[in-house]
Amino acid sequence: MTVRLNEKFATPFVAPHELDNLRPAVSGALEALQKKNGPGSDFLGWMDLPVNYDKEEFARILDAATRIKKSCDIRVVIGIGGSYLGARAAIEFVKSPLYNDLQKDTPDIYFSGNNISAAALSELLAICEGKDICINVISKSGTTTEPAIAFRVFRELMVKKYGVDGARERIFVTTDRARGTLKHFSDESGFETFVVPDDIGGRFSVLTAVGLLPIACAGIDIAAMMQGAAKAREDYASDDLDTNAALRYAAYRNVFYRKGKKTEILVGYEPHQLMLNEWWKQLYGESEGKDQKGLFPASVIFSTDLHSLGQYIQDGARHIFETVLDIRDMGAEYLIPHDEANVDGLNFIAGKSLNEVNKTAMLGTLFAHTDGQVPNLVIELSDRSAASFGYLVYFFELACAVSGYLLGVNPFDQPGVEAYKKNMFALLGKPGYEEAGEALRARME
Amino acid sequence: MTVRLNEKFATPFVAPHELDNLRPAVSGALEALQKKNGPGSDFLGWMDLPVNYDKEEFARILDAATRIKKSCDIRVVIGIGGSYLGARAAIEFVKSPLYNDLQKDTPDIYFSGNNISAAALSELLAICEGKDICINVISKSGTTTEPAIAFRVFRELMVKKYGVDGARERIFVTTDRARGTLKHFSDESGFETFVVPDDIGGRFSVLTAVGLLPIACAGIDIAAMMQGAAKAREDYASDDLDTNAALRYAAYRNVFYRKGKKTEILVGYEPHQLMLNEWWKQLYGESEGKDQKGLFPASVIFSTDLHSLGQYIQDGARHIFETVLDIRDMGAEYLIPHDEANVDGLNFIAGKSLNEVNKTAMLGTLFAHTDGQVPNLVIELSDRSAASFGYLVYFFELACAVSGYLLGVNPFDQPGVEAYKKNMFALLGKPGYEEAGEALRARME
Repeated sequence: MTVRLNEKFATPFVAPHELDNLRPAVSGALEALQKKNGPGSDFLGWMDLPVNYDKEEFARILDAATRIKKSCDIRVVIGIGGSYLGARAAIEFVKSPLYNDLQKDTPDIYFSGNNISAAALSELLAICEGKDICINVISKSGTTTEPAIAFRVFRELMVKKYGVDGARERIFVTTDRARGTLKHFSDESGFETFVVPDDIGGRFSVLTAVGLLPIACAGIDIAAMMQGAAKAREDYASDDLDTNAALRYAAYRNVFYRKGKKTEILVGYEPHQLMLNEWWKQLYGESEGKDQKGLFPASVIFSTDLHSLGQYIQDGARHIFETVLDIRDMGAEYLIPHDEANVDGLNFIAGKSLNEVNKTAMLGTLFAHTDGQVPNLVIELSDRSAASFGYLVYFFELACAVSGYLLGVNPFDQPGVEAYKKNMFALLGKPGYEEAGEALRARME
Repeated sequence: MTVRLNEKFATPFVAPHELDNLRPAVSGALEALQKKNGPGSDFLGWMDLPVNYDKEEFARILDAATRIKKSCDIRVVIGIGGSYLGARAAIEFVKSPLYNDLQKDTPDIYFSGNNISAAALSELLAICEGKDICINVISKSGTTTEPAIAFRVFRELMVKKYGVDGARERIFVTTDRARGTLKHFSDESGFETFVVPDDIGGRFSVLTAVGLLPIACAGIDIAAMMQGAAKAREDYASDDLDTNAALRYAAYRNVFYRKGKKTEILVGYEPHQLMLNEWWKQLYGESEGKDQKGLFPASVIFSTDLHSLGQYIQDGARHIFETVLDIRDMGAEYLIPHDEANVDGLNFIAGKSLNEVNKTAMLGTLFAHTDGQVPNLVIELSDRSAASFGYLVYFFELACAVSGYLLGVNPFDQPGVEAYKKNMFALLGKPGYEEAGEALRARME
């Protein structure tokens, strides 16, 4: 098994009948997903994606990644939300959060167009100076403000640097299959395009071209990643709550929420997990946080944050539970050196592996936090290979969809994301928003 | 004023008499801090630090930073919790989150010893290969597991690379003034040492040598930073709740907490603020999260996270409020280019400054989130200079101390941090922990 749900530190807080009583709801949720007749069922493309993905496009992604590797020092990936979090999570998880700083035969990768910071943009432009660059803009409509601005800036830069013909070979566009101004402009301009599918929302899109092209550029085996996801699809097809770990995770979260635990903290013990946590926060927060409901998704990296948020988790207000991702094999090892002086008194662990100490910190923390009345679920993941990453993505996506149905929300829409955009456009004087602009300005008096 | 508290988006949720009714408690809290007779009063060294800091040591810090700048490509800072968060926050805030990648005449800075990850350590060692390095280990006792392990590894490496005499010039130790094995070992070995004061806890230590040496190594004006903090100390000395923004911030948080808002989200609109958010999370979480009480500290960077957690904040469970840090002048500008094709329909903002659009996104979000029933406090900061950073640090520290007293906790201890350590030592077989180890192993059956 790639994933195993260790419930030892959760069961003291949940009686067996509580999970049993959820069987009808859990089965109903999974069936609605499989029969595609529940809320938001137009957005279930991610469910069969690991087996029915477009093989021709997949081959083009691999081919593009090979060309990009040869032609550039820096790959700028332009996208926001689901159009960057999945790829960045994969690269940091499978490779390293220090990926750019490490020696490698693949280009540096920078993510842009995910904020409106002039300082951040100026700094990235300075870093790109004198370097060969390629860009990958990822936007379904092509009109999302943040990536659109970055695309304007980098396109202008590349035409200046390489001319119209040279730039054409270095601009890759991931967008709608047929509609939208970005698709039409790309076809006219001769940019190679890849598809953001209609039936897969941004936060579920990491295994489409949205995530796969940047991930492949980092030298990660995306075929193995898809195979991992396909394996999870198989493993989690049954509605047997006793054996289906994705369903059990969904059920536990639901029980904790109803008991008044309003915040779920996703915990890792490796810095490599930091951006996976951020991807997970979008997946769960955007899927469940609606109609004044939903678990608030937070995250920490231990032991780092045991020295910042550890006190709160141990002793603070008891409205939280933790879900720990335990990566069994990190694929790296280091033995703690002996020190003649024993300045730190740590010679009792000299010769031990750092991984063993890290696992012991985890176990000690699980005991301590549950003693402090914080329930802990542990998701054991075999390793951090591309295949395991794909598997874990599918595990979390399916559990999220089931969680949403258990909570009674449509896990596939995000109506609340528009509210600030409308206000911003109104205040910026976008044509068509004149009245809304006046109303807001009146409120500013 | 360096800091202004904009309450416009909070007042709809708090009646004026609610703040008025807190005047006695707020005055009492500030007075106890000033007279040093409240809970935890042995740890109030941070209060007068901006004026009474050790000037001789300060000069040595500047001198050491100059030597380090000349002699190394990479500066490895070894510390965890308060021994790294403040310095990292300052460097990313005043300089850049891409500090290491930018052209500069100061060394790259990597933070180590803040986790137990073999993968992270191995990667950093690979990055250091062939480079000239210096290290700064920061640990009051010298026995904290994470930095102690990293210090063993890097000390061994440096002795191999530079010999005992060469290494001596490249190892800087920030530790207890007189006691502790690390202090004794450093004196014996001839390492230059700096002081972690007895009366300042880790999370309040950024303006001591703990933070100042790494910050100075990044070329940041630490004298200006201290002057900024001294200015804040002056500005926030009065107990007048009408004019003292630090007291008002503390009072508002307390009101929200008692109304059932159990989570405070610190919001920024610049990636430069990411690690400041992490520093703030330790400061507030560790100071308040005890006795089953306290606001849970979370953080986001917008507009980035409007596309991940935005939906939740707009429409999810209503147990949250936001505190927005609004940096008025980021010291960088970029004008949005005109695009003949207008692919994205954004020509209505062509020629506008990116900062203006960012500020409009902020304003639009403030309206949207308060319409969604999430109270918003706005802390306006004039700029991101070293002086303003120092000012802001003091603002947050004082407000935190007052908040803790209002909540009825000792904001200066952290008893809960020991629980996981005890378990870890017991499971690792540390001498003296045999019984605890057996008890835990029995629970693992």
